[in-house]
Amino acid sequence: MTSDHQLDLGRRGRLGMVEAIWGEHKSADQLARIISTLHGQGELALATRVNAEKAAATLSQLEGSGSVEVRYDAQAYCLHTAVLPAPDPALGTVTIVSGGSSDLCVAREAQLALQCHRISSELVLDVGVAGLHRLLDRLEQLRGASVLIACAGMEGALPTVLAGLLPQPIIGVPVSVGYGVSAGGQAALSGMLASCAPGLSVVNIDNGYGAAMAALRILNSGLNSGAGVEGP
Amino acid sequence: MTSDHQLDLGRRGRLGMVEAIWGEHKSADQLARIISTLHGQGELALATRVNAEKAAATLSQLEGSGSVEVRYDAQAYCLHTAVLPAPDPALGTVTIVSGGSSDLCVAREAQLALQCHRISSELVLDVGVAGLHRLLDRLEQLRGASVLIACAGMEGALPTVLAGLLPQPIIGVPVSVGYGVSAGGQAALSGMLASCAPGLSVVNIDNGYGAAMAALRILNSGLNSGAGVEGP
Amino acid sequence: MTSDHQLDLGRRGRLGMVEAIWGEHKSADQLARIISTLHGQGELALATRVNAEKAAATLSQLEGSGSVEVRYDAQAYCLHTAVLPAPDPALGTVTIVSGGSSDLCVAREAQLALQCHRISSELVLDVGVAGLHRLLDRLEQLRGASVLIACAGMEGALPTVLAGLLPQPIIGVPVSVGYGVSAGGQAALSGMLASCAPGLSVVNIDNGYGAAMAALRILNSGLNSGAGVEGP
Amino acid sequence: MTSDHQLDLGRRGRLGMVEAIWGEHKSADQLARIISTLHGQGELALATRVNAEKAAATLSQLEGSGSVEVRYDAQAYCLHTAVLPAPDPALGTVTIVSGGSSDLCVAREAQLALQCHRISSELVLDVGVAGLHRLLDRLEQLRGASVLIACAGMEGALPTVLAGLLPQPIIGVPVSVGYGVSAGGQAALSGMLASCAPGLSVVNIDNGYGAAMAALRILNSGLNSGAGVEGP
Amino acid sequence: MTSDHQLDLGRRGRLGMVEAIWGEHKSADQLARIISTLHGQGELALATRVNAEKAAATLSQLEGSGSVEVRYDAQAYCLHTAVLPAPDPALGTVTIVSGGSSDLCVAREAQLALQCHRISSELVLDVGVAGLHRLLDRLEQLRGASVLIACAGMEGALPTVLAGLLPQPIIGVPVSVGYGVSAGGQAALSGMLASCAPGLSVVNIDNGYGAAMAALRILNSGLNSGAGVEGP
Amino acid sequence: MTSDHQLDLGRRGRLGMVEAIWGEHKSADQLARIISTLHGQGELALATRVNAEKAAATLSQLEGSGSVEVRYDAQAYCLHTAVLPAPDPALGTVTIVSGGSSDLCVAREAQLALQCHRISSELVLDVGVAGLHRLLDRLEQLRGASVLIACAGMEGALPTVLAGLLPQPIIGVPVSVGYGVSAGGQAALSGMLASCAPGLSVVNIDNGYGAAMAALRILNSGLNSGAGVEGP
Amino acid sequence: MTSDHQLDLGRRGRLGMVEAIWGEHKSADQLARIISTLHGQGELALATRVNAEKAAATLSQLEGSGSVEVRYDAQAYCLHTAVLPAPDPALGTVTIVSGGSSDLCVAREAQLALQCHRISSELVLDVGVAGLHRLLDRLEQLRGASVLIACAGMEGALPTVLAGLLPQPIIGVPVSVGYGVSAGGQAALSGMLASCAPGLSVVNIDNGYGAAMAALRILNSGLNSGAGVEGP
Amino acid sequence: MTSDHQLDLGRRGRLGMVEAIWGEHKSADQLARIISTLHGQGELALATRVNAEKAAATLSQLEGSGSVEVRYDAQAYCLHTAVLPAPDPALGTVTIVSGGSSDLCVAREAQLALQCHRISSELVLDVGVAGLHRLLDRLEQLRGASVLIACAGMEGALPTVLAGLLPQPIIGVPVSVGYGVSAGGQAALSGMLASCAPGLSVVNIDNGYGAAMAALRILNSGLNSGAGVEGP
Repeated sequence: MTSDHQLDLGRRGRLGMVEAIWGEHKSADQLARIISTLHGQGELALATRVNAEKAAATLSQLEGSGSVEVRYDAQAYCLHTAVLPAPDPALGTVTIVSGGSSDLCVAREAQLALQCHRISSELVLDVGVAGLHRLLDRLEQLRGASVLIACAGMEGALPTVLAGLLPQPIIGVPVSVGYGVSAGGQAALSGMLASCAPGLSVVNIDNGYGAAMAALRILNSGLNSGAGVEGP
Repeated sequence: MTSDHQLDLGRRGRLGMVEAIWGEHKSADQLARIISTLHGQGELALATRVNAEKAAATLSQLEGSGSVEVRYDAQAYCLHTAVLPAPDPALGTVTIVSGGSSDLCVAREAQLALQCHRISSELVLDVGVAGLHRLLDRLEQLRGASVLIACAGMEGALPTVLAGLLPQPIIGVPVSVGYGVSAGGQAALSGMLASCAPGLSVVNIDNGYGAAMAALRILNSGLNSGAGVEGP
Repeated sequence: MTSDHQLDLGRRGRLGMVEAIWGEHKSADQLARIISTLHGQGELALATRVNAEKAAATLSQLEGSGSVEVRYDAQAYCLHTAVLPAPDPALGTVTIVSGGSSDLCVAREAQLALQCHRISSELVLDVGVAGLHRLLDRLEQLRGASVLIACAGMEGALPTVLAGLLPQPIIGVPVSVGYGVSAGGQAALSGMLASCAPGLSVVNIDNGYGAAMAALRILNSGLNSGAGVEGP
Repeated sequence: MTSDHQLDLGRRGRLGMVEAIWGEHKSADQLARIISTLHGQGELALATRVNAEKAAATLSQLEGSGSVEVRYDAQAYCLHTAVLPAPDPALGTVTIVSGGSSDLCVAREAQLALQCHRISSELVLDVGVAGLHRLLDRLEQLRGASVLIACAGMEGALPTVLAGLLPQPIIGVPVSVGYGVSAGGQAALSGMLASCAPGLSVVNIDNGYGAAMAALRILNSGLNSGAGVEGP
Repeated sequence: MTSDHQLDLGRRGRLGMVEAIWGEHKSADQLARIISTLHGQGELALATRVNAEKAAATLSQLEGSGSVEVRYDAQAYCLHTAVLPAPDPALGTVTIVSGGSSDLCVAREAQLALQCHRISSELVLDVGVAGLHRLLDRLEQLRGASVLIACAGMEGALPTVLAGLLPQPIIGVPVSVGYGVSAGGQAALSGMLASCAPGLSVVNIDNGYGAAMAALRILNSGLNSGAGVEGP
Repeated sequence: MTSDHQLDLGRRGRLGMVEAIWGEHKSADQLARIISTLHGQGELALATRVNAEKAAATLSQLEGSGSVEVRYDAQAYCLHTAVLPAPDPALGTVTIVSGGSSDLCVAREAQLALQCHRISSELVLDVGVAGLHRLLDRLEQLRGASVLIACAGMEGALPTVLAGLLPQPIIGVPVSVGYGVSAGGQAALSGMLASCAPGLSVVNIDNGYGAAMAALRILNSGLNSGAGVEGP
Repeated sequence: MTSDHQLDLGRRGRLGMVEAIWGEHKSADQLARIISTLHGQGELALATRVNAEKAAATLSQLEGSGSVEVRYDAQAYCLHTAVLPAPDPALGTVTIVSGGSSDLCVAREAQLALQCHRISSELVLDVGVAGLHRLLDRLEQLRGASVLIACAGMEGALPTVLAGLLPQPIIGVPVSVGYGVSAGGQAALSGMLASCAPGLSVVNIDNGYGAAMAALRILNSGLNSGAGVEGP
Repeated sequence: MTSDHQLDLGRRGRLGMVEAIWGEHKSADQLARIISTLHGQGELALATRVNAEKAAATLSQLEGSGSVEVRYDAQAYCLHTAVLPAPDPALGTVTIVSGGSSDLCVAREAQLALQCHRISSELVLDVGVAGLHRLLDRLEQLRGASVLIACAGMEGALPTVLAGLLPQPIIGVPVSVGYGVSAGGQAALSGMLASCAPGLSVVNIDNGYGAAMAALRILNSGLNSGAGVEGP
């Protein structure tokens, strides 16, 4: 039938990545069907941007199906295979930093996506630049990470300040909190792209999953000399 | 005749401010005529946004006229009455901070406008947030200012970091240096307005004169309890 | 645990300001927990942008906790410690002017934020420039303020007209009322930034709290010669 | 040949208007040919947005042609038939008000376009709202006009203030002077459209000719009860 | 008390216009109170942008108050004094043209606002330019109007085509129907401002009331030679 | 060497199209080298967006090279192989319509690109919708075309009106003439995309070449039942 | 009565197209009345952008009316005459390609609109460019289509890749799925217009109906040599 | 003196990076002085965005100064210390891919910045997605790189296609070539941020230097386990 979802099951082999399901415009029906298909083929499932109501409907549809167990992470707005693989510290660690507690959902989405690929991570929240000492106090801790992901809304200055202080790869994630000129995350996005700090790269607004995948590409490349990644 | 420039000569009495002449869309002819009129009435003249070529043409027109002497400040792109009043430290001091040396013209415009009103100021340049230590090293010096003016292009994070560290009134001036998303100063402007630091206020892109006048209003209000300012 | 809210409790010492809680993207749970923490440390609490429903939920969570009493200001959309410190007229007064009665919530947010810092203020509403006489009739009253905060939506011309008439520091707050080109407050913001009146500075759209903090910085600087503010 | 300019010579009969030639994207060659054609048919010629250099080239091409004489108005950036019809006060008068002397070229374009249709007009310049008294002093003079055209750049508040004070038809013309957020006239345009004053209508940025034609439609409708305008 | 609505009751005397109440951001409480005040002073009341639910709440509050009767016009989204003054054809007529039936609410708002000022009007709907013959068939009827108001969403070409065919004053009203690039009415607004037809003037998106007031200014000016309008 | 231009010489086989050279960001050196390479392989050369000065430099570089002759079309701003293939009427005809004579360069670019593929075309200029009769008078002529290309700047209403009157495929090309809101062609682009006329499709602003290629795809598909186009 | 919907019933004769009803801003009442009118005149009815709730209300109003049967297509968000004419393969086929399963509603709207005109079509879903092999695997199938319609949200690269591989007419439809910079479909729209692939033309965001009508114009022109289309 | 350029000489120690000089808004005087200072301290100098004329002026100022030799790279628009350190393949390689030959200057800026840090790189130009085979033919070569930098203007689809095919870290650089909606690089930027391919990260428009520094951070992190980078 023409309208079936055609999964990109070769993605793990090609890119070393699980294909995440973008849940925002899908119905509970569609989500349940896709998750079942993935589980039937022995794949992990990760569906992002699923609100609580749609998650409940999806879970109740999946319940009777005898499928592998699925869990809803209400902080990350994600549905995922309940049992995720154990993190392997040898793959490197990612530290996810955020400017305010309103950025939590994006930071958690990134963390969950990393976990699906066995990458261990830690969250360092509420270290916005309006109280610089909170950030400077954590600097030694941040220095230990293989890759930094920095989430920030409002003016989005956190990744700029970090990238001026630390030498690691750093991925900025603009977050759509704010109001007036910062509503929707556009000011944070522009601020990160316009950054005077060298070597900061950026993903789309609220794209925690994308930042995690950019970090994964970096970690994999370090392990494998960049040629022939095998996936987690 | 209807098309004559009608000067707002009451501005000094009403607001305690000299009326600056916005030079960008005026011809050398118009500038020379307005400066002569002001000098004829015993007023200072300050014309902003005058490029070197137009300045030369204006100066050569003014030369034969026997008028008070006029000078061109090539860093500030301003023409002004050559002899400005001596600064009076009792009126307070303003420190003008900038992120990069490309912001110099805006910072200098602010400084010159303050000087026209007898306010002393100092410039602290090249303290952008990508090298945070440069800013932190100057913190004690900045703490002594009555009012801070912070000029920044690119992502414009400097005023945000400052406003999180220091308690004074702070006026952000976005600067139109940059490229891509920061071309024209829009990213810096949005970043300053969206700032997570409390109590930062902002003027138009490149508006060094406006920031100086906002500082002047503050200094005057401190001296006079806010009621009945008499002007410099 | 990583995801706890990390309060910036040093802000009062550093900047002389209470840290306001931005309520828009926080849950009633998060709000109740933060307010309790602040009260436990003897701090005032002020949470902005809390709608009536979330306020009720937060209040009912706080009720049983034996905490200091909290009140909801439905005009300002703010939750705050019920008993605020008495205003001290020696600190100066702020007059908050608005163009239309739809701007009331922003004006009230500013007033409440000032009250948390013992600053007395008065509201002058409905003096929009379409009926200029209403504004001109109040001019003598406005002349008495230490600082003016001018809130306006639509075309946002009120602060421009005021800044041409009065010499005090004046902070413009664009308000997100309007439709078509003025929807979201962008036209008012641009109008204030582009103002032909000298020395008007601006904060983000709807940022009543930010305007209050900018006014507080000015008032504190007048009292303390700008060096070493101690907080209210 | 296909690429000839096809003049809309019926416009005078249909709309009571001369067809103006928009000179900005036309060469001196094209302008000279169109002006000759119009003169050959006994029509007036008015070409707008012609810079001084292109005007000179056009005039020198026309010189040898034995055509009716053409004049360049350097303030209005317009070429026009040298001898324009005498104004007829019975048709009503238009007063063209502007906020700053940088708006002069737009105001003059409007005036010239009115003159081509025998409408008398006067210019009232430099009555910007930052010095409100300059405007209030001219109020009685403005009260006598049949239609008001108000040109303003920057924040564009002038037409709003006027429309709150006077009952006549008023047409706002945003002007592309300004910098930062007002560069290009967009802030002035938004401000006029968002105006809180009732019944202000607006034309495109810098469209002095369009404002004149809107005024002409109004004047003609008053004379002829709106049905069957015959043209000047 | 400071937060009372301060009505601009002098508007009728000054401008010959009733002050309309912009209902979008006001509560039923506020609306009921303002309407009562107006009726108490013998004024008409017209509140625009009131949805059905808020209208019902306002009406039920007004019911017991013994005030003059109020009516809700569900097509125009307006509350108004039930008995409006009889139209006086001697004042001229306005024809309101619209491109699609989705523009009806804006057209009706304009019609109601005219009726409050005793101006008779007629609606000509569904004459969009995609079926040009529908418009051409009505041309003779449109030729009889004193003033034309043309409402259009999508690409907003209707006023342009009309202004090329008819000589009357014509006011374009962009309407916020459409999707994609025309969502919110911005494409229609730009199209009308950019129009190649001479003398079309424009009001804000969805501003039916504003277009009516612009028409009223025109009609009044025709009657009174533009000086000293007395109001309907 | 790595930085050589890598021509897509398979394009003719794959798509039935000559690869045009986009000349705007290329130097005369680069243009001369690419044109020589194409001629050396027996291909036509067409370079778009080449200004007169760069064209002269390119031609003088090519002169001594013994290459096939090249010609500059100053109306289309294009360099092209001097001898183009003869048009074949059996392939269908394209009529290129434009609203104003300022659109000529875009219309000519389209015509030249069609000629390179042996498609005959005609230009119908100056039939803008402000003088609707000019368009209606040509309707029968337009009815004969296989495909219509409609170029328009300003508000861009011409393709909308055409698409409501005629059944053929019609491709709108927004043109970057205009000022204020129509500067750069954005208003015309939005107007065409938002069009209320069904089945109008659009290409990028000023993209005459793209419109020609879209027309070519249509003509080829008619001849070959859409499968296996062989190129002109 | 003035406010009746005035159907463009001549559209089929003039353009060979059924007039679709744009359902988004119409009430169930209006929809039911228009559908009845069309059925009464022997016309097909197709109403686009009707959500499930409004569809149910419309259907229940139509039920008792004895009208021709109407059906709701929940995937396409369309109401339509239940019995559509049988597809005629001789008219050509359209293949509708989409990048993700979230684009389904737009693709289905296009398919339904084609079906109303007897055009057969097929859907090829989920062939986004992030997994290029999925697209390359279907290339031979796509080569058989007369016209291609390519729907894509996010970055909208699908039509660009297709247009570089296949010679047919190809119409891009940007889809409003996505978040951050791609929210609302603007990034996809810009990407398609800016495409480096030659001859791709584009319709408004989400305009499946418009793409279908553009395809219909192409198919009809192939059959009839572009002159005198008779409709399906 | 206050206006001296304050170099961030600690950057190499802190971040392992040479501080590049952004040449766009600096005069030849300023550039010569900064380059001399850097050379005096034994540092490399790299000045980006220097046009040919300013480069010549800078070089002639430096000539007599006895400083280390400086060279101008006209493809990269960069001035740099003539003798750069030899590349060290053990640090990894970067492949810089570009869509069209107009992107060359950005690609070369990246390459030069890498060379300053001893990173070897290669350029793969003209592999735009409109001729997909050109890209697919180079896939094996690209698979060998440690990090990919992909430069593209127009619709910017190249990095998306690459990121769907290859597992390495990939940094997208939007390029400001294009016209209409792609002018200035905004369409390419949005396209890359909105990409449906996972893990693509992006830098500012034309920011070749920034992409190089992001690549350097990645290469350094692979060598040093992310903690304690020592610089090249």
